[in-house]
Amino acid sequence: VVMHQNELSFPFKRYAIQPVWRADRPQKGRYQEFYQCDVDVVGSDSLSYEAELIQIYDEVFAALHIQTVIRINNRKVLAGIAEVAGIPDQLIDMTVAIDKLDKIGFGGVRKELHERAISEAAIATIERILQLQDRAALREALATSAVGREGLAEIDTVFAYLEGYELKNKLQFDITLARGLSYYTGCIFEVNADTNAYPDLRMGSIGGGGRYADLTSMFGLKNMSGVGVSFGAERIYDVMAECGLFPTEDEAALKVLLIAFDEASHRYAFRCLHPLRQAGINADLYPEPTKLKKQMKYANDRSVPYVLLIGDKEMERGELTLKNMRTGEQGAYPLNQVLSRLG
Amino acid sequence: VVMHQNELSFPFKRYAIQPVWRADRPQKGRYQEFYQCDVDVVGSDSLSYEAELIQIYDEVFAALHIQTVIRINNRKVLAGIAEVAGIPDQLIDMTVAIDKLDKIGFGGVRKELHERAISEAAIATIERILQLQDRAALREALATSAVGREGLAEIDTVFAYLEGYELKNKLQFDITLARGLSYYTGCIFEVNADTNAYPDLRMGSIGGGGRYADLTSMFGLKNMSGVGVSFGAERIYDVMAECGLFPTEDEAALKVLLIAFDEASHRYAFRCLHPLRQAGINADLYPEPTKLKKQMKYANDRSVPYVLLIGDKEMERGELTLKNMRTGEQGAYPLNQVLSRLG
Repeated sequence: VVMHQNELSFPFKRYAIQPVWRADRPQKGRYQEFYQCDVDVVGSDSLSYEAELIQIYDEVFAALHIQTVIRINNRKVLAGIAEVAGIPDQLIDMTVAIDKLDKIGFGGVRKELHERAISEAAIATIERILQLQDRAALREALATSAVGREGLAEIDTVFAYLEGYELKNKLQFDITLARGLSYYTGCIFEVNADTNAYPDLRMGSIGGGGRYADLTSMFGLKNMSGVGVSFGAERIYDVMAECGLFPTEDEAALKVLLIAFDEASHRYAFRCLHPLRQAGINADLYPEPTKLKKQMKYANDRSVPYVLLIGDKEMERGELTLKNMRTGEQGAYPLNQVLSRLG
Repeated sequence: VVMHQNELSFPFKRYAIQPVWRADRPQKGRYQEFYQCDVDVVGSDSLSYEAELIQIYDEVFAALHIQTVIRINNRKVLAGIAEVAGIPDQLIDMTVAIDKLDKIGFGGVRKELHERAISEAAIATIERILQLQDRAALREALATSAVGREGLAEIDTVFAYLEGYELKNKLQFDITLARGLSYYTGCIFEVNADTNAYPDLRMGSIGGGGRYADLTSMFGLKNMSGVGVSFGAERIYDVMAECGLFPTEDEAALKVLLIAFDEASHRYAFRCLHPLRQAGINADLYPEPTKLKKQMKYANDRSVPYVLLIGDKEMERGELTLKNMRTGEQGAYPLNQVLSRLG
């Protein structure tokens, strides 16, 4: 973006899907080569983009048939907590510790905050506030912090943009969401597969992102705010595999097998394939005009619900014999009627 | 395929798109990392698959708006030429030389055949036959070679399967097509951008493939014939870039910019975005409800043909003010009428 700043109209939206590498220790759901899929908007502070990115998450995961929880928080809310706890200069230490909450629990976070030289009084305040999941109660708790109030107001605005829009996934404000990367400055997001829907699944976040003010300044472009989210393609694949969300063979399976009896009818049958497929019907032709028995056996092996038989009689009349393999019923119809019967 | 031979029903069709690497010297149109896109059918000798792969090439290149020439030949035809020329045991030498014909011309091929110890009489025969582009003349020239006749009959069968199917690209039988890889045994294919359509383009083939009998035997699975084609994704990209075949900015551009005047109407406008986009209309909302002048300037900068103005009056009436930026005309309509006017 910085390189092309003079050619672009801002706000600038982009998305990218590409392989990237990272020198991390590989572990479950953590690969050294992975596909990075992300969507960003650069050059505007508008919170309508936070709302739009939530809609994108919502649509993508609905399309993949994964039930997810999209969590949202705001770094300014976390800054407000640090302020109210009297440790505004230890915000990063606090954030890093809170980020581990779902892994190590409140006990672990308390210990980590302690090790990071945060006072017991501050730890008690932080713990008390983190347990408030209600935004009204939070507004009260953070009333003395301007930045905290601003963060909550931003969350409210994002929800206001989404009013009346029916999300297919759950959207949750989660005060304990912190995200490790320190460049986020506003709203932050994380997406997990819904543990209510998939109780046996053990999988980290499958998406995340947030708002970063001035991310581009280190590349020489000042005051350019942006917001972006990414998709963890490999983890999404793992979730879909573990939860059986890929289309079953049955759904993807052949609907009709064309069966021909000699070279001429085989060519005729081949020409019928195209209109069948154009009509969205999963059709295939047995590769050779061999014995009927062999072709019917193949149709049975593949559990094809229909076969279309094409011989001299059918070619002459311009009809195809459609046989329902379950009921055994059969009848001869012109191609357009076959299309509507199978469609 | 060999690994899963017991789970698969043959013929087995597959396609794959994945990055691969090769240790070649990089040059124009020849990359060290490239995307391999290919389609294969394994486990059948049926020539209907050759016809189907031609249809796939045809549909893909039509969808990409690239005019191509799909060339087809058959290795058995080349074997027939070697037989008629009296050099059946030098088939590979002959094929390798012929493969360079489009780069080095007949003179170069003649020289190469000579260097490969092929007799002058054989070279003369080969050259004479290669100049026959007519299948009837070829049938005569190869009449004494059983394998040559078989190759020509296979080509005829492929064309017969395609009878009545309207190809959007050119399909040409090309006796000089050889393809370097020696494992091809039957039909071979190569696709080039049509030089008549793009006279300034210098680009090698953008696709190729062929029939291989018994390819899998080196992995322990005998007598498994297959046919496959691949797409040169990077070269296709280069052709599209050089020939200006990517959608222009105009086609991909914004159709309507939504303009709001305060926070409330901005949220209202945001909610109108979704139905507009659902209807396939490229719509966007100016990120903030700022001054009209600034928003109209942005609309002009992006050459947006329409804007939708949304203020208190519009929200009250449930209408949006649609303005045609070219004619200056404007009128207020409910959303569904806006959809049909813009759709």
